[in-house]
Amino acid sequence: MSADLSSVAVHTMTNKPWSLAQCCEHYAAAGFGGVSVWRNTVAPEEGGVGLDEAVRIVKGSGLAVPAYVRGGFFPAVIATDRQRAIDHNKTMLDEAAALGADQVVLVVGAVPGMPLSEARKHVADGIAACLPHAEQVGVKLSIEPLHPMYAADKSCINRMADARAVCEQLQHPMLGIAVDVYHVWWDPDLDREIELAGQQGTLFGFHVCDWRVETRHLLTDRGLMGDGCIDVAGIRDMVRSAGFHGFDEVEVFSEEYWAMDQAEYLALIAERCASQLGSPHSA
Amino acid sequence: MSADLSSVAVHTMTNKPWSLAQCCEHYAAAGFGGVSVWRNTVAPEEGGVGLDEAVRIVKGSGLAVPAYVRGGFFPAVIATDRQRAIDHNKTMLDEAAALGADQVVLVVGAVPGMPLSEARKHVADGIAACLPHAEQVGVKLSIEPLHPMYAADKSCINRMADARAVCEQLQHPMLGIAVDVYHVWWDPDLDREIELAGQQGTLFGFHVCDWRVETRHLLTDRGLMGDGCIDVAGIRDMVRSAGFHGFDEVEVFSEEYWAMDQAEYLALIAERCASQLGSPHSA
Repeated sequence: MSADLSSVAVHTMTNKPWSLAQCCEHYAAAGFGGVSVWRNTVAPEEGGVGLDEAVRIVKGSGLAVPAYVRGGFFPAVIATDRQRAIDHNKTMLDEAAALGADQVVLVVGAVPGMPLSEARKHVADGIAACLPHAEQVGVKLSIEPLHPMYAADKSCINRMADARAVCEQLQHPMLGIAVDVYHVWWDPDLDREIELAGQQGTLFGFHVCDWRVETRHLLTDRGLMGDGCIDVAGIRDMVRSAGFHGFDEVEVFSEEYWAMDQAEYLALIAERCASQLGSPHSA
Repeated sequence: MSADLSSVAVHTMTNKPWSLAQCCEHYAAAGFGGVSVWRNTVAPEEGGVGLDEAVRIVKGSGLAVPAYVRGGFFPAVIATDRQRAIDHNKTMLDEAAALGADQVVLVVGAVPGMPLSEARKHVADGIAACLPHAEQVGVKLSIEPLHPMYAADKSCINRMADARAVCEQLQHPMLGIAVDVYHVWWDPDLDREIELAGQQGTLFGFHVCDWRVETRHLLTDRGLMGDGCIDVAGIRDMVRSAGFHGFDEVEVFSEEYWAMDQAEYLALIAERCASQLGSPHSA
């Protein structure tokens, strides 16, 4: 069976052992339609190949770039740190534009001990400060609500409803939500929120993976679709019914899978996309 | 400084290496007012001393018993398994009554792969089937919303709002909510929900511990109050303002603390109760 993967993108972090060039080469050869680029493969200070070379690799691959990952991390105790975060997000928007990325995904941040309500204000302020630049370079910003187990130090926005609150507050066509099944599958309001996001035009991204039972590590033990308990196809139906026509983005952090031969792993990913995502749709 | 611990109870699982007799002896000697008894210290099939002996130990200690822990686990694919869960909860209510416990805490359960909406129906049905027995024996049932990271296999009720929905559906004076800061601290609706629970008379229990940054294990890496990022005193103020006058129950699962000398650990617990819980109040 050769599945239609043209509407599926893979996050470079899913194949962490690979370079950007290896990711793009293998994704394109396997028939995937897109690559979501993590900054560590691009920025020299994070070990990446540099923006010019990254652009050359990505454009040469013919792959679409649904997302450049990951901006955000706005809350900080010190004002100059908050400004530094804003500047960094603007830099990421520039890089995303050069790469031809549709959006910069925001992991909005949190500071241990800072009240979440205060952190959420920093997030709204930070995003507001970046939106004019996003409009200028033509790259969208998507808030990714993160699972509540990351509320302490990674994200003070943990449900779609809370991402919606920021979108409603800022009311900007370049601001929306990236829905990752890992973070939101448990939410009793999920179907209603996805429908609302569809109506409000804020469904910018859709990330897939699975929740392993038992989960052995909070960060690096995600499952591939079919490994766990999330009804991925069901949630995908919801976002499609709500009017989302973008890529299914495979984003899996897993020490177990990173230890595999990555070409064999990519074949498994392709298999699971075919068996677990439901019927294909055009991106 | 010798703090007033008369309104503080400790869960036997907090001092897992100790027997029920050791827990009660040490808690009473340290001035704690209560012990919340986990069933593994009671039921012979779980390694406990047997109900009669447990009753003798607990009554002899002079300690109050805010909670018998933990009932629930209602959802199951097979109807006979759901009935077995109901029967088990009735047994726990009987044991709780013998121990003089105020309430049985419910970890409501979840079945990997079963839609959470279906599991929630099983929970409401199961609790409904137990409430007449709870009334008969004079022991309350409290739903403990569990952190969303336990939605896969331990609890399909992950926010106070979802516990409230069951309470509102069943409308029974013996049914309420046990608020554990570990599970609910991240919830943007927490203050409103605690206030609502106060108005509805459903604030039955209050559990304290802390969320470690970084958390190294999903189940057994809780912190002691002051180890992590939860504003425990702030949440305690909320439940007190909402009219809760019961015990502060110290419930910590931690491989690290279980490895300590338990008498030294209990002294540390007493210290943290004094420094982290805010002003004492009578239970």
